[in-house]
Amino acid sequence: MNDRQVVWHASLVTREQREAANGHKAAVVWFTGLPGSGKSTTAHEVERLLFALGCQAYVLDGDNVRHGLSADLGFSPEHRNEHLRRIAELSRLTHDSGMIVLCAFVSPTRASRDKVRALIPQGAFFEAYCRCPISVCAERDLKGFYAKAQAGQIKDYTGVSAPYEEPTAAELVLDTATQPVAQCAADVIALLTKRGIIRPSATLTPAARGA
Amino acid sequence: MNDRQVVWHASLVTREQREAANGHKAAVVWFTGLPGSGKSTTAHEVERLLFALGCQAYVLDGDNVRHGLSADLGFSPEHRNEHLRRIAELSRLTHDSGMIVLCAFVSPTRASRDKVRALIPQGAFFEAYCRCPISVCAERDLKGFYAKAQAGQIKDYTGVSAPYEEPTAAELVLDTATQPVAQCAADVIALLTKRGIIRPSATLTPAARGA
Repeated sequence: MNDRQVVWHASLVTREQREAANGHKAAVVWFTGLPGSGKSTTAHEVERLLFALGCQAYVLDGDNVRHGLSADLGFSPEHRNEHLRRIAELSRLTHDSGMIVLCAFVSPTRASRDKVRALIPQGAFFEAYCRCPISVCAERDLKGFYAKAQAGQIKDYTGVSAPYEEPTAAELVLDTATQPVAQCAADVIALLTKRGIIRPSATLTPAARGA
Repeated sequence: MNDRQVVWHASLVTREQREAANGHKAAVVWFTGLPGSGKSTTAHEVERLLFALGCQAYVLDGDNVRHGLSADLGFSPEHRNEHLRRIAELSRLTHDSGMIVLCAFVSPTRASRDKVRALIPQGAFFEAYCRCPISVCAERDLKGFYAKAQAGQIKDYTGVSAPYEEPTAAELVLDTATQPVAQCAADVIALLTKRGIIRPSATLTPAARGA
């Protein structure tokens, strides 16, 4: 980027026009929490509900991004920063396309989460903290990552050998240890409704309830 | 990625379900050509037409990606490769979300374009070659990049000091030197209709025609 200017091409379709056509606003819901705290599971259930409600929604998570866009990156602090920088830009573009973007990333530092927030228009970013004691995360951990981390076989494992900074001002706290997934997902839908992202819908359709 | 497995979370909403709800298939149209050949201009006009037709469509171009996701990359062969690798993954995710993705990138090598094609399901990737003589590109170049490149002030400038490999099997060749933008965009819409990505629409609505 140093030896030339890159000219910005403005779109002929604004995000506001997309939102009007979609019948809902674009937004980013950022699920953060320890590995195994239920971020991806909750995000996918919210995606299912939003789709059933006729909304454009899409999950970005560590899994689909680490297998592709960040396949060249590991888990060192530098690589985590670059990983989150790319996700932030990916979220910005996906939000700009009119989607409700459901991001599920450990994102262990406040600074990294605040960088994403700064890229999204005010009122369209929602931090959802999946609060779950590490003992429950470790119990749920079918692949045994926590045990391997505790045995020193995995380096830089968040919650064990790498720090996790709890959110101090999240828009939503989900008690994923005690609340079922359906309740956590319903809480996200309620927040998006209250904040004017989606239209009020008194009851979900049978399809949305998975019936 | 070396010290742990990343588990793939399957979405609860399939791309086929998204396509059914949107009323059109997801696709990637890949505009390639020399700098100044009209890639972004054509892509944005196609986006405008598709939006007016009620489709989900979004432009990814060198401008919005080089300002963000690839802001750390320059124009050396290595950086161009990494830039295109990231765009390929971005295109894959955006396609998976149900969009008709309109990608406008110089993408000078056949190998790099074929790598993107390989990531997208068969029948959903369309290479659109913006064929335009370099003399016309240079004439149109309001910012004087071609002149600077010819004077040796910009290194690795495609068409001047870096190679461009013409497509040999593009789905569409657009003569952007002689055809107006509206005609080129209409050709893309016609191709997407013929290949079953969007529904036949005998005539565009007045809004689509920009009236």
